[in-house]
Amino acid sequence: MDIQKRIRDYGVKIGRLDTGQYNAITDVEGVTVGHVTLSDKEKGIQTGVTAILPHQGNLFKEKLIASSHVINGFGKTIGTIQMQELGTLETPIILTNTLSVGIAADALIGYMLEHNPEIGITTGTVNPIVGECNDMLLNDIRGNHIKKEHVLRALKNTSIECKEGTIGAGTGMLCYSLKGGIGTASRRLKMEHGTYTMGVLVLSNFGILSDLNINGKAVGHEVKDAILETDEAKDKGSIMMIVATDLPVSERQLNRILKRTVTGLSRTGSIMTNGSGEIAIGFSTATKIPHDKPNQCLSVSMLHEEDMDLAFRAVGEATEEAVLNSFVTATHVVGRDGNERPAFKDLIDKYNISLT
Amino acid sequence: MDIQKRIRDYGVKIGRLDTGQYNAITDVEGVTVGHVTLSDKEKGIQTGVTAILPHQGNLFKEKLIASSHVINGFGKTIGTIQMQELGTLETPIILTNTLSVGIAADALIGYMLEHNPEIGITTGTVNPIVGECNDMLLNDIRGNHIKKEHVLRALKNTSIECKEGTIGAGTGMLCYSLKGGIGTASRRLKMEHGTYTMGVLVLSNFGILSDLNINGKAVGHEVKDAILETDEAKDKGSIMMIVATDLPVSERQLNRILKRTVTGLSRTGSIMTNGSGEIAIGFSTATKIPHDKPNQCLSVSMLHEEDMDLAFRAVGEATEEAVLNSFVTATHVVGRDGNERPAFKDLIDKYNISLT
Amino acid sequence: MDIQKRIRDYGVKIGRLDTGQYNAITDVEGVTVGHVTLSDKEKGIQTGVTAILPHQGNLFKEKLIASSHVINGFGKTIGTIQMQELGTLETPIILTNTLSVGIAADALIGYMLEHNPEIGITTGTVNPIVGECNDMLLNDIRGNHIKKEHVLRALKNTSIECKEGTIGAGTGMLCYSLKGGIGTASRRLKMEHGTYTMGVLVLSNFGILSDLNINGKAVGHEVKDAILETDEAKDKGSIMMIVATDLPVSERQLNRILKRTVTGLSRTGSIMTNGSGEIAIGFSTATKIPHDKPNQCLSVSMLHEEDMDLAFRAVGEATEEAVLNSFVTATHVVGRDGNERPAFKDLIDKYNISLT
Amino acid sequence: MDIQKRIRDYGVKIGRLDTGQYNAITDVEGVTVGHVTLSDKEKGIQTGVTAILPHQGNLFKEKLIASSHVINGFGKTIGTIQMQELGTLETPIILTNTLSVGIAADALIGYMLEHNPEIGITTGTVNPIVGECNDMLLNDIRGNHIKKEHVLRALKNTSIECKEGTIGAGTGMLCYSLKGGIGTASRRLKMEHGTYTMGVLVLSNFGILSDLNINGKAVGHEVKDAILETDEAKDKGSIMMIVATDLPVSERQLNRILKRTVTGLSRTGSIMTNGSGEIAIGFSTATKIPHDKPNQCLSVSMLHEEDMDLAFRAVGEATEEAVLNSFVTATHVVGRDGNERPAFKDLIDKYNISLT
Repeated sequence: MDIQKRIRDYGVKIGRLDTGQYNAITDVEGVTVGHVTLSDKEKGIQTGVTAILPHQGNLFKEKLIASSHVINGFGKTIGTIQMQELGTLETPIILTNTLSVGIAADALIGYMLEHNPEIGITTGTVNPIVGECNDMLLNDIRGNHIKKEHVLRALKNTSIECKEGTIGAGTGMLCYSLKGGIGTASRRLKMEHGTYTMGVLVLSNFGILSDLNINGKAVGHEVKDAILETDEAKDKGSIMMIVATDLPVSERQLNRILKRTVTGLSRTGSIMTNGSGEIAIGFSTATKIPHDKPNQCLSVSMLHEEDMDLAFRAVGEATEEAVLNSFVTATHVVGRDGNERPAFKDLIDKYNISLT
Repeated sequence: MDIQKRIRDYGVKIGRLDTGQYNAITDVEGVTVGHVTLSDKEKGIQTGVTAILPHQGNLFKEKLIASSHVINGFGKTIGTIQMQELGTLETPIILTNTLSVGIAADALIGYMLEHNPEIGITTGTVNPIVGECNDMLLNDIRGNHIKKEHVLRALKNTSIECKEGTIGAGTGMLCYSLKGGIGTASRRLKMEHGTYTMGVLVLSNFGILSDLNINGKAVGHEVKDAILETDEAKDKGSIMMIVATDLPVSERQLNRILKRTVTGLSRTGSIMTNGSGEIAIGFSTATKIPHDKPNQCLSVSMLHEEDMDLAFRAVGEATEEAVLNSFVTATHVVGRDGNERPAFKDLIDKYNISLT
Repeated sequence: MDIQKRIRDYGVKIGRLDTGQYNAITDVEGVTVGHVTLSDKEKGIQTGVTAILPHQGNLFKEKLIASSHVINGFGKTIGTIQMQELGTLETPIILTNTLSVGIAADALIGYMLEHNPEIGITTGTVNPIVGECNDMLLNDIRGNHIKKEHVLRALKNTSIECKEGTIGAGTGMLCYSLKGGIGTASRRLKMEHGTYTMGVLVLSNFGILSDLNINGKAVGHEVKDAILETDEAKDKGSIMMIVATDLPVSERQLNRILKRTVTGLSRTGSIMTNGSGEIAIGFSTATKIPHDKPNQCLSVSMLHEEDMDLAFRAVGEATEEAVLNSFVTATHVVGRDGNERPAFKDLIDKYNISLT
Repeated sequence: MDIQKRIRDYGVKIGRLDTGQYNAITDVEGVTVGHVTLSDKEKGIQTGVTAILPHQGNLFKEKLIASSHVINGFGKTIGTIQMQELGTLETPIILTNTLSVGIAADALIGYMLEHNPEIGITTGTVNPIVGECNDMLLNDIRGNHIKKEHVLRALKNTSIECKEGTIGAGTGMLCYSLKGGIGTASRRLKMEHGTYTMGVLVLSNFGILSDLNINGKAVGHEVKDAILETDEAKDKGSIMMIVATDLPVSERQLNRILKRTVTGLSRTGSIMTNGSGEIAIGFSTATKIPHDKPNQCLSVSMLHEEDMDLAFRAVGEATEEAVLNSFVTATHVVGRDGNERPAFKDLIDKYNISLT
């Protein structure tokens, strides 16, 4: 779906499960992703918006079972209180820079009002979901360059094609002292009762190069001295991990799955520093929870707990691979005050770095 | 089911919903309760065991959806970690005194092993649920008078008759400076798709008399000076609240219900003191989760969230009434070192106290 | 501080502890409150903003120990993830209507950027705290009438005078089927090592009249038929509870205090319905946590746990009284589509209702 | 301190921080560990008890700041509710097999009563901490071979020498399809205000060989076919991680540290399977919280949050190394029904496995 060279194209194969068709979050039926990128080297603007649509119907009317998990809460994600209480997602998910979460939430509320004229009149309100990372090194984050129209455009232009690296919310992000950003991956889960998909999309913005491991290899440690011109900055980063699946799971089970994103994240070398907000948000497309109360009880399909291991393995593998994809696809960026971060792919070529 | 005079017999009607047939936790089909009482005034032994059987089949093989909620965690309840993770209950629930939780857990494990010869051989282990309150004022709690056989006898002798007050685990407990102990109540919930039952059983052991409210009336404050011969002790108490229902709810929904026990508790006057461990444990009999994985996914019935309000009202009312029942039925007890606590029913008569 | 007739002026005295000087959250030294009210009957605009300044210095540089507690998470409060992780508050607290949380967060971020030019340049980002209730019955909530300047004005115009009822964020709120809004109260805590203050401010927007209790008296039930012209609406409300104290407490201890707001709330009659987001946010002014790392460890003063009971009692009493103040001070409001809610004080006079 | 060959003796160096003197949890001043081992191949008894003493004074009188973190709650650990509520530890920590948690708690209560004659008389009760893993493959776990005297003996015989592998609670445990058990490691943390120690002790009992990574190398995958005679069993395991430090941290900060154990665990290959209860318990020896309330407030020293990164790195490294030590030191064990697990050290020699 993309001509970007991904981690598998370098011969690195994470884990043992098969990937989905595109090895992307959009392998989960119904999920689409849209990006709006703001990039102006002169003005130091390197930021953007990424929108994830969990399904193509009316999400407010047909909510999805959802959950969130906070690994490290040094973050400003909006909307998780209600998601945890009710176990549902009723809006798309927006990712952007830290100081734009307010305007992004406002835009998403507006989008939901437009599509649901009864909100605030005959039915209650809506719970917007917005995640963020801090792109201040490369982006003039104080300038508030994200406007409502950028969010609306990202929501409008989603597709099953999911570009990676320096794009959308990932435009100004770093990862392991390199240029980071958007990455994605997926896994197929073959169970007795069907074949399912687990997809992960990350917005990566954390880590220092000397901690970077690629499939167990201490690549960062090995190449650090050669390729870094300056000292490593203190890690102030974060990561947002969006998990989509069509597995029939309860919100509790989905939460258990989200908790396992950390295995993949850890294997790339993260120590989850103080300043690195690390938050996972997930949803299952298997069951739609109607906004309007029916006369009967709801009937929900869920896995037996012993089926969960495969889901745990899948989410760990997909998260690890999505993180690696996020920085191996990213391009070199110069931003605020001339700050810059190298593209790992350029370094690989220049220094002949072996990833395997 | 009982000739004990309960709070309704004094003209006090809590809330607006109808009670179940016995106004007891055992109104929930399949639930039975058993008590073993150890009472020896001379030796200062005033303690016991109360067992709640959530259903009459093999609980390990057919688990129930379950949850717990910690209002104040100054308590030693055993088994909630796994209950929260898996959302299920696989053993009966045992209540006893604080220092006997270990031996009670050991006895309950033994009981489960006896009924499930495959545990520890071909299948994993079992998660015992034990709750407690501290009966040290009236009971020689250091004496470890609860033995395994007491727990096993309580488990063996359960019935739908649920006695209250100075019985079982409630034998040495206090409530609002009065003799407390076991109390129960229930409510019926009429919904479009069926009529359900919410039952609550409490082990009450908290509060000081001057805080006691009965259906909004500040009875404790009014009668305190007249009836208390000594200063109120500092509240070191606790309350265990066991909630049973046949409502089809997910573990998340059940947890929301458990959180509302606090409304009833608060209305009786509790301020949830530091030393008062206040823990709710609940289960739904509507769905049985098989221990052994079937080939298909599980299908679980659950309420639409908008149906929850009636459940919230029911659990608050039943909790409030169960607390009141716990001390209005209790008898005068003399225990350790001659410590004693009066029976409220004796005081009502003696001082002509009006509860309405 | 206010000529509004408060619940004590009707002879209702909640609890046993003394109030602070103004019986308001602003009795806690350094705390100020500001309101901006938008009221246009013709256009159906009845909404506003309330800002709470926890201290008068630079909050970002000198953070306060803080915590939050979700009683019922059907709400859109922003900022609690980081508050829980780090245990600190670094911005003022903004209250407004549900659909304006995004724009309010955006305005608060702007306010913080203006006062802290290093944010986003040499130091990280900032975590805005915004709470909300849904005023859709009386307010054209879809109209997005709250603008950034309203938030900034509320922040600018804070004072120790804390008006109540139909003001600021409370302009369009309901409580127990009556007009609700802003209410406040405080308690003094005399301990061996000093005298402290516990202040509570609520934004009330929940409940149905038949559930209303005033100091134990079932006032709502008694007067409902006489005074309500229409059926009670389904409760879709919420309550925000802001707790301020100068007690030296850790974030864990503060969280324990916040959990006890529920006792006061319950005593007014709340059953915490499904749709009623109920969230408490609290801070202690006793310790300032520096943004910039000093060379030494921090030294923090905290209560011994046995001192907590007085704090628990205080917060319950103050919350109960703040809720009662919120609707007993409110004025009659006509709003969106001619919807209206009566002022309880008018009904008290008209129907000669006794509150004691 | 031990002639067992540890992972460093195989040339594997985990992370970049220095170890403490013994590279063991007992490097934290005051911490001692004791084991009782029950091993009888004929009777299929392979189990035991490990006791950790957090300091050498009276823990009940001088409690330590403590916390717990549940990674996967499929476990029966006792005592975490109160530890989370109060943020303190008041007993030693006992580790044993899953079905012996009741008897171990009972023994620990007895031990505390003996050392504190006022418990249950003039002061309240005590909160025992017991962790567990399931050793049913090698041990006749149904036989209840752990008795109170074993627990008391482990408590009595602690020392700063901390043996590893097949000892104490680790006697019958597995790890990555190999013999597992007790492992430990430590790290030194040099900060501006002092040098501190982070120690970890694990009871390992999880994983399948094909997932095993040693310092990034996929050793398990490489050697699996050669060395495993049978199929890998389904992982039903668990891991207990005990974290000790002398860092001055609040309970919230300690909890943040505990959450980072997962990074080390993940790097050894764990995917945190459904049946693998994974629980971390930690304490800081830096501050003693008195049981008896003093007249003044407590003064607690804590890190500035920006100092936490070093602690996060340390706990990840020490956990990873402790897991590796647990199975590289273990000896071959034959147990229940002739079940057996190989010692990795024997396989290393036999198959000439390179770990680096």
